[in-house]
Amino acid sequence: MIKYPLGSVSPTIKAKTGRLVSTAANRGMSLEHDLNLSNDYYNEKNIALITKRPTPINVVRVDYSKGARITDAYFEKQSTTDYNGIYRGKYLDFEAKSTLSSSSFPLSNIFLHQYEHLQRVIDQGGLAFFIIRFTTLGASFILPAQEVINFKNTAIRQSIPLAFIQEKGFQINEGFTPRLDYLKAVDELFFNR
Amino acid sequence: MIKYPLGSVSPTIKAKTGRLVSTAANRGMSLEHDLNLSNDYYNEKNIALITKRPTPINVVRVDYSKGARITDAYFEKQSTTDYNGIYRGKYLDFEAKSTLSSSSFPLSNIFLHQYEHLQRVIDQGGLAFFIIRFTTLGASFILPAQEVINFKNTAIRQSIPLAFIQEKGFQINEGFTPRLDYLKAVDELFFNR
Repeated sequence: MIKYPLGSVSPTIKAKTGRLVSTAANRGMSLEHDLNLSNDYYNEKNIALITKRPTPINVVRVDYSKGARITDAYFEKQSTTDYNGIYRGKYLDFEAKSTLSSSSFPLSNIFLHQYEHLQRVIDQGGLAFFIIRFTTLGASFILPAQEVINFKNTAIRQSIPLAFIQEKGFQINEGFTPRLDYLKAVDELFFNR
Repeated sequence: MIKYPLGSVSPTIKAKTGRLVSTAANRGMSLEHDLNLSNDYYNEKNIALITKRPTPINVVRVDYSKGARITDAYFEKQSTTDYNGIYRGKYLDFEAKSTLSSSSFPLSNIFLHQYEHLQRVIDQGGLAFFIIRFTTLGASFILPAQEVINFKNTAIRQSIPLAFIQEKGFQINEGFTPRLDYLKAVDELFFNR
């Protein structure tokens, strides 16, 4: 089992209370780090198997005299999403994003090919969603990709209001282990409703 | 639609005929390249959504004066498998390997963590398999991961004989489009039996 530092414990924020409690303990820990810890936990407990896709890098030059050391390369944009895997027998695929805004999530954070990819996941019968963290509020949510796609196609606004995310999504409990129990929110949004 | 060069057309090899036809046209085209073309085809036709995980690279130094150019990095071993996705509503996960041997597939090609990963996929109800290409024979097969795991745990030999792969697996038709119709072999092994 992974040992978590005590400093990372944060009070659980109740979903949909209207009032969001800021948790200073969260600051500085990245969303990616929290998700990786949570995925390790789900994996160890045989709850799910969810992995992060490595960041795609275009390798230009390799120095084999140094044992295949890469000496020139650059980052590429992920053509899909960051995470996928299997949970309760279902294929699951999601993108995780943070925002410093405390009132809405700007759609400029999402690339066109990510919408397309998630639409294909939905078409194939998979579970597709976003995890959105409002860093300054210390609160994270799951929002089904279908809701984001519908919002983008119909709304005039270029950012999704927090109230919309609270209504159509589900707040993720933050705790000790797992750090972000986002599969409980997946249960609520995709299995219990 | 992706246009394929005419030179890449190869006669379809009939599965389980006992006699394997070598197709010179295949030589030099890598298994990864063929799989990526096939996945593009499956994706375009809405048959499946299967993607290759990027090669994990550990970035040591980035030169921001050159616009985030990576100047020092090295390749890491993939901690999972190379491909995953969704097909017929099922999560699917596989590793693709080539061998120059014409009689057996050496287990030294498979890393311990890949067995563990594929076992977890099976435990979660996903479809787990290997694609094995015998380069010198110009023939590729699907073999369920469970068969490979069983072989490893019980056999004394450290390589899987071709006859075993022909018996427990299914040969993949190679053709024009898709290059490697491996999902037909998945149908046979996981849905029709």
